[in-house]
Amino acid sequence: MDIDLSRGTETPLYRQLQSALSRRIKSGDLKHGSRLPSVRAMAKDLGVSLITVVQAYDALAADGLVHASVGTGTFVGSPTVTPSSDTIARDGGWAEELGETEWQTALPTYLRAPRTASMQSLLRPARRSGIISLTSGSPDPSLFPVRALGRLWHRAMVVDDPRSLQYGTPQGDLHLRAWIATHCSAAGIPSLPDDILITSGVQQAIDLVARTFVGPGDYVLVESPTFLTALDIFDGRGAKLLGVPVDSEGMRVDIAASLVERFRPKLIYSIPTAHNPTGTTMSEGRRRQLADLARQRNLLVLEDDSCSDFTYDGDAPPAVKAFDRGGHVVFIKGFSKTVVPGLRVGGMVAHGPLMTRLTESKSLVDRFTSPMIQGTLWRYLSARQYQRDLETARGVYRRRRDTVLRALGELMPREITWTVPAAGFNLWINLPRSISSAEAFEQALKEGVACGFGDLFLAQAPPPNGLRISFADKPEQILEEGIRRLAAGMRKLLDDELGRSQETDFVTAV
Amino acid sequence: MDIDLSRGTETPLYRQLQSALSRRIKSGDLKHGSRLPSVRAMAKDLGVSLITVVQAYDALAADGLVHASVGTGTFVGSPTVTPSSDTIARDGGWAEELGETEWQTALPTYLRAPRTASMQSLLRPARRSGIISLTSGSPDPSLFPVRALGRLWHRAMVVDDPRSLQYGTPQGDLHLRAWIATHCSAAGIPSLPDDILITSGVQQAIDLVARTFVGPGDYVLVESPTFLTALDIFDGRGAKLLGVPVDSEGMRVDIAASLVERFRPKLIYSIPTAHNPTGTTMSEGRRRQLADLARQRNLLVLEDDSCSDFTYDGDAPPAVKAFDRGGHVVFIKGFSKTVVPGLRVGGMVAHGPLMTRLTESKSLVDRFTSPMIQGTLWRYLSARQYQRDLETARGVYRRRRDTVLRALGELMPREITWTVPAAGFNLWINLPRSISSAEAFEQALKEGVACGFGDLFLAQAPPPNGLRISFADKPEQILEEGIRRLAAGMRKLLDDELGRSQETDFVTAV
Repeated sequence: MDIDLSRGTETPLYRQLQSALSRRIKSGDLKHGSRLPSVRAMAKDLGVSLITVVQAYDALAADGLVHASVGTGTFVGSPTVTPSSDTIARDGGWAEELGETEWQTALPTYLRAPRTASMQSLLRPARRSGIISLTSGSPDPSLFPVRALGRLWHRAMVVDDPRSLQYGTPQGDLHLRAWIATHCSAAGIPSLPDDILITSGVQQAIDLVARTFVGPGDYVLVESPTFLTALDIFDGRGAKLLGVPVDSEGMRVDIAASLVERFRPKLIYSIPTAHNPTGTTMSEGRRRQLADLARQRNLLVLEDDSCSDFTYDGDAPPAVKAFDRGGHVVFIKGFSKTVVPGLRVGGMVAHGPLMTRLTESKSLVDRFTSPMIQGTLWRYLSARQYQRDLETARGVYRRRRDTVLRALGELMPREITWTVPAAGFNLWINLPRSISSAEAFEQALKEGVACGFGDLFLAQAPPPNGLRISFADKPEQILEEGIRRLAAGMRKLLDDELGRSQETDFVTAV
Repeated sequence: MDIDLSRGTETPLYRQLQSALSRRIKSGDLKHGSRLPSVRAMAKDLGVSLITVVQAYDALAADGLVHASVGTGTFVGSPTVTPSSDTIARDGGWAEELGETEWQTALPTYLRAPRTASMQSLLRPARRSGIISLTSGSPDPSLFPVRALGRLWHRAMVVDDPRSLQYGTPQGDLHLRAWIATHCSAAGIPSLPDDILITSGVQQAIDLVARTFVGPGDYVLVESPTFLTALDIFDGRGAKLLGVPVDSEGMRVDIAASLVERFRPKLIYSIPTAHNPTGTTMSEGRRRQLADLARQRNLLVLEDDSCSDFTYDGDAPPAVKAFDRGGHVVFIKGFSKTVVPGLRVGGMVAHGPLMTRLTESKSLVDRFTSPMIQGTLWRYLSARQYQRDLETARGVYRRRRDTVLRALGELMPREITWTVPAAGFNLWINLPRSISSAEAFEQALKEGVACGFGDLFLAQAPPPNGLRISFADKPEQILEEGIRRLAAGMRKLLDDELGRSQETDFVTAV
């Protein structure tokens, strides 16, 4: 398809592609019912990433201009309604009345297509039965403390404090803040209840920091790869993302330091322990360096700790925040992985005027997090059962990690390497240069296993080529079979590649 | 105090005042321990509103440069620490290490000081004992269905569906969406579960619409006065707010229409039923006009319905959304007033591509609202007890409204008028031109009653001068005594005014 995309502009490529296709659909150039090229073919044709095409197709589908049909492709038009000819040729003008879909699609939006939505689209084929999905970073629901939370909620509300049903304060429940402050202090982060802000999950905490301190054109340093929703959030603020490579000791702080000199970023976002998606844990030396860098350059560091309670080979080093002497590090503690995701509660630790500003932001976005939920979580965290449950879960997840690592070692072709996670739910498959993340992702799907598509975790285009494997929510025999399928897929790709390069050699020899 | 403020710039006045004072404190011009002029005196001296000074003082306090002491004033320096001389004179440079407070205050922020924080500051004197507070729009906690929610949560989680502890979907629980869709359809807003998005309260719904469709420099039309946090949210997006007057039939849609022609706003925000802060209900004619205006001009209307279940003189007209033929109206339904605030759940109704975009926004801000909470709310709404509880609460609130209206009629000087709320928790005291909201607010405090300071509810400077009275959470004898005090205060102000104008007459006559 003949479409001009320009890389020098502020308009994202996917928006350009979306506009070009939208124009052709509206002009009738692309007929109702006709099939668009496959995502893969379009990406290859235009020399853009799979994500760009997926985002453009998703945006067209959201506007009702195309619809996807599982297993058969993407078609022009909505699945049920044929637009009448008099509603399709007009433009989003000011004074005319437009049809429902038209005026809405003409409405400017300040939102970029989230990578999470692209991940969902890419994984649509994986919904068919028989596919093993190693894509979810969720904990195993069979480990959830269902009865305890049921009992404690009842107690929190009916017996102890019906005031938890009234409006809460933006900063959050004092008991829960005190628990987090004590827990953090014991872990080397001296803090008082006033240094804690309760959020509706870790993700809201990232969003609060972004909306308070990051704006259009600001640079943000992130690990590459990193948590994909964090990328979406910073993107949504109009920030420019700079990826810092990760090795076995975590973020390359030396590279971060040189990027800081060059770009003077507003924020460094890091997941030092149980890094998502690689599972690596930052060394103590690097943590000290990162805290020093922040202090020397008056930088804000956002430290995301969603999963450090699940370490498998001894304790992780103290948090970066433990080496923070000037209040430069904002530390986020999550409970979704270690208690349950459904509570939707996280805690943020910040010192100084930052806390006032973050609390003001919280008071704007949703005013407060449900006090009933906070009361229930506090009661659970304070009960002896919490430590026992944590210990049990850690054992289960450790065995699952070991199973995956053993299977990878036994089954994977030697050209493929992977990270060894000392904590958390994920590991990263390093692909050789000759295999793109897209090829590996699709080949794995053909073999019956779904993995996290690596490019989505990157601030910029690859390298690194890779896949994310999440192992927490599957029993061991499923994990083993999943890795077997993945290994078979990678073997095929490598064989193909070998074939292609031998052909090339042969031609060259002639 | 000799401070230059310029009104033509993009920098808000309070930021300019904050900077000017901050410079003088850091230079030592304003000495540690010295007292700043009172908010009132400073506002008068500079010819700015009280809010401007309150916001500037709050921002200085957040930065640790001043501290407020209840009843005595605002003082330079933090209450405990004296800054050493070598840390106060330096500037927020790039390469130097700064103290904790310094580098943080040098950090640019994308947040404006919220009006809610100013309200808290202004109401600080009201915390002393004996003051009757008519400032809280909260429901009465003695009416909360504590036992039912305790029982239903337990049932939602332990008995029915432990999956509610896992990650939820951004759009929300299907049962709850189906309940809202059915409820809305019955009220004249045809909708399916797919047209509903569950949010963490009404406020988050406003924030989602703002972050998705409103950006820097965009115009937003709001009723004047209106819900103050909505003003904070639109301000936070960098929008320009235009206030539309409200009369006994609600928003003056004719004036809105002419503002639309002139400014082409991105959004009209309205609370047609149980309007906050005036308590008025928009007439059916105006509702039709507003829906037509949106359709004719391809405008987005955000209809906030937090409290329409509490009508006192017969049903309110159908929602504006009921007259929406092109998907131009996004309707928000709240449960904080009608069930309990502590659940922190709201529902948003939108049709067409808007829903996809809003759901994407939700997936970024906090990913999902707790499914346990949603399940509990759904069970309560579906139980017969809900209708009974609603009926009981409506009776209590109606009696409280009647008490306030009767007391106002008996006690208020004839120069003061007020709105008669047909629904909701609030009414508005209209002050004559000769009395400013600030004077009335302070005089009322002196008499021992706290009211909502009217200027905070306005997009622009007054008129209208006014005060908000909230009556839902107080027993009738307290309400009566509160109005008695308010009336006494207003009488004094009017007498003073009369005295002043007679003096003036006398002087003129000479």
